[in-house]
Amino acid sequence: MNAASPLLPFHQARHAFRLGTSSPREYLERCLHTIEAREPVVRAFAHLDVDGARRAADAATQRWREGCPVSWIDGMPVGVKDIIETADLPTGFGSPAFAGWRGGRDAAAVLALRQAGAVVVGKAVSTEFADVSPGPTTNPHDARRTPGGSSSGSAAMVAAGMVPVALGSQVGGSILRPASYCGVFGFKPSFGALNRGGLGDQFSQNCLGTLSATLEDAWAVCHEIARRVGGDPGWPPFAGGLRPAPPARPRALAVLETGAWARAEPAARVALDGLLEQLRGQGVKLWDRRTSRRVERLEAAIEDASRRSLAINDYEKRWPLGEIADRIGPVLSPGLRAGVARGRQMSAQRYVALLQGRDAARDALAALAGEVDACLTLSATGPAPRGLGSTGDSGFNVPASYLRCPALSLPLLQADGLPLGLQILGQPGQERALSSVARWLVGKGAGGR
Amino acid sequence: MNAASPLLPFHQARHAFRLGTSSPREYLERCLHTIEAREPVVRAFAHLDVDGARRAADAATQRWREGCPVSWIDGMPVGVKDIIETADLPTGFGSPAFAGWRGGRDAAAVLALRQAGAVVVGKAVSTEFADVSPGPTTNPHDARRTPGGSSSGSAAMVAAGMVPVALGSQVGGSILRPASYCGVFGFKPSFGALNRGGLGDQFSQNCLGTLSATLEDAWAVCHEIARRVGGDPGWPPFAGGLRPAPPARPRALAVLETGAWARAEPAARVALDGLLEQLRGQGVKLWDRRTSRRVERLEAAIEDASRRSLAINDYEKRWPLGEIADRIGPVLSPGLRAGVARGRQMSAQRYVALLQGRDAARDALAALAGEVDACLTLSATGPAPRGLGSTGDSGFNVPASYLRCPALSLPLLQADGLPLGLQILGQPGQERALSSVARWLVGKGAGGR
Repeated sequence: MNAASPLLPFHQARHAFRLGTSSPREYLERCLHTIEAREPVVRAFAHLDVDGARRAADAATQRWREGCPVSWIDGMPVGVKDIIETADLPTGFGSPAFAGWRGGRDAAAVLALRQAGAVVVGKAVSTEFADVSPGPTTNPHDARRTPGGSSSGSAAMVAAGMVPVALGSQVGGSILRPASYCGVFGFKPSFGALNRGGLGDQFSQNCLGTLSATLEDAWAVCHEIARRVGGDPGWPPFAGGLRPAPPARPRALAVLETGAWARAEPAARVALDGLLEQLRGQGVKLWDRRTSRRVERLEAAIEDASRRSLAINDYEKRWPLGEIADRIGPVLSPGLRAGVARGRQMSAQRYVALLQGRDAARDALAALAGEVDACLTLSATGPAPRGLGSTGDSGFNVPASYLRCPALSLPLLQADGLPLGLQILGQPGQERALSSVARWLVGKGAGGR
Repeated sequence: MNAASPLLPFHQARHAFRLGTSSPREYLERCLHTIEAREPVVRAFAHLDVDGARRAADAATQRWREGCPVSWIDGMPVGVKDIIETADLPTGFGSPAFAGWRGGRDAAAVLALRQAGAVVVGKAVSTEFADVSPGPTTNPHDARRTPGGSSSGSAAMVAAGMVPVALGSQVGGSILRPASYCGVFGFKPSFGALNRGGLGDQFSQNCLGTLSATLEDAWAVCHEIARRVGGDPGWPPFAGGLRPAPPARPRALAVLETGAWARAEPAARVALDGLLEQLRGQGVKLWDRRTSRRVERLEAAIEDASRRSLAINDYEKRWPLGEIADRIGPVLSPGLRAGVARGRQMSAQRYVALLQGRDAARDALAALAGEVDACLTLSATGPAPRGLGSTGDSGFNVPASYLRCPALSLPLLQADGLPLGLQILGQPGQERALSSVARWLVGKGAGGR
């Protein structure tokens, strides 16, 4: 099987729209062709809206023809994770309890995308309530392997070339890990940077973000969302710009082990080591826990991030998951019900202590601001594991959620002939600086060339 | 007309439940009797559920009889502001666009109240989406006067003796002002202290809180909510205790003018002056902007709070109000649509600058922590104004929202023979300390006795 995307990046296709040599409808038809060919195996869509997408693409085509597209992403086909509400399509939250459910409204991000002329192709499969129980989606690189989760469908539909961008969300590792497994860009912005209104879960680490075939298309989507509906109330909206910043060689990077290092597979370590060797050769100063006290302080602060995040998330399952559990409990998976029960056992004192620990970890990241241009680590312990019963190990992804900082998974590494993401983490609100490092890493062909 | 509540405080009634000399059903029937007598004029209810309330009260009665109530508020009749979702009752958001709308789920606070055995008597009239366009509710002290807003029905139903406590919410002055006009206790906790899940608006200053006939009943309700569903994700839950702290004479208080002082009516100033004179006589040190540089710094920081709050709120109207405006615009009031339009014109830079200004104001409040035990001011410019077309001036109430601090309106003053609230503001998270000051002020019969 082959996941190589035949899809032209949207930011390149738009030039042809302007010239009149192609159109959003033509672009959509290529997407639909790929969907028709690959969806029976990939199973990325919880709901597909061919007619609605064609209508929206035709309207965009008309605007481009008249020389007045409403935005840079006018006519862009997008997938929307199925825990994000859509007025015209059902939202199932990855749960049989909500099969066919319609809230009758657009989530904030969907409202923004529609205002910007984007074409909602359908809803992307999510794990159950963006937790761990997987849906039917397979990895486009190998259908026997998981695409990762919880943004399973979003990552897979981009990797298969069905859409250039899909919306995802991450509480633990739900954007960065599927991006790594599927070989696409995963972008988890700073906490609060994209308005989560109408997103099914509202955990205190949760972020809306993107899975995409290019950094440029992801940036344009985030820019249009923030511009039109802002970030979460009380938080600075995404300010990364319409286009990522020009590439620039980082002066110094912090190489993080995180609490997951001991579980990193040999092939993944080898892939990362090869990249680090290249970076050193290009004059990038690399700090790690052995050479920098500040990095060691951050490592110590995130060592236990997975366990602490899970506890914070459990406490926050009191609502809406607790309400759903009380009302229609047996339809929920035993794992999710157990999480609700654990959360209800936790004292407020313990929860507040966990929040304070998380704040302290963020201080440790902030202390690195003058020292390094970004932090760097693996996006996963290895390539996508075999089997569809588990969405994999989120150990390398949780720190970015816990630190509430922006992070990118770049599809630059390989292990065992399968994709593996390189993860970079920036300072909160500094998406623009992070994009500069990302583009340099991408442009230099990290990973071998 | 007379608003004097014939209703026994619930925290006193529960002793009779324990002894078996009364029951929650009997307590409810007294409420229903009052509702029947006064609702035709007061019009506090958007929806009344007599049958459901009786069923719930009977169940609570049974639990008390068996000696195993599920909480201190088991059997307490409560009203729920009609922008808070209820699974079994419609939620109308004060808008004809949502008349009869049912979301099919309980908001977090309602879930908690039901778990605690409380009896939801009905939904309380709100202004349109908790903004300024009033509903039909009248002031129980004088039906020609506004009850205030946006928690109009919540304040009026408590003042009329229909329920001991009702849930309200405040973005600007929507708990404290109606409490002042209706002569009841209004409690706006620290930002994030009570879980807002399922509340129709999610502004960055918005808080869930209570209108109540006694401080004790309000505290028990907030305690049970926080204990069962926590606060907003990422925020410390209400930690004021099941009961307010023992009364204690404050060492020192800051007397605030706020930006509204110039609009305070003569009778209101006289009422406050009388109280301040008493406090001085009792050895309470009073600081104000002329005698304390720190108080002056806070005054300067909140001088313009109303305008700045409105701008922040307008920006945040992009969702869900913006989505509703796009979908069913003409059903919204012109004022609300204008707010959405203003918000969409505002730049992210301006919004972020406003957030930074708000943070700075909070720093100015924090700087007073060692100097005073609480801040004190009027809850309104005067008694409830005549007419039902406007819900009154929120100038004295906005600072507590803007500062995201806990605040209480205590029904201790009078002006022109009508109720007027005395407002006290505490430090964020210090509800317990604030309750101690409140009980001392209430216990000493401030305002004349």
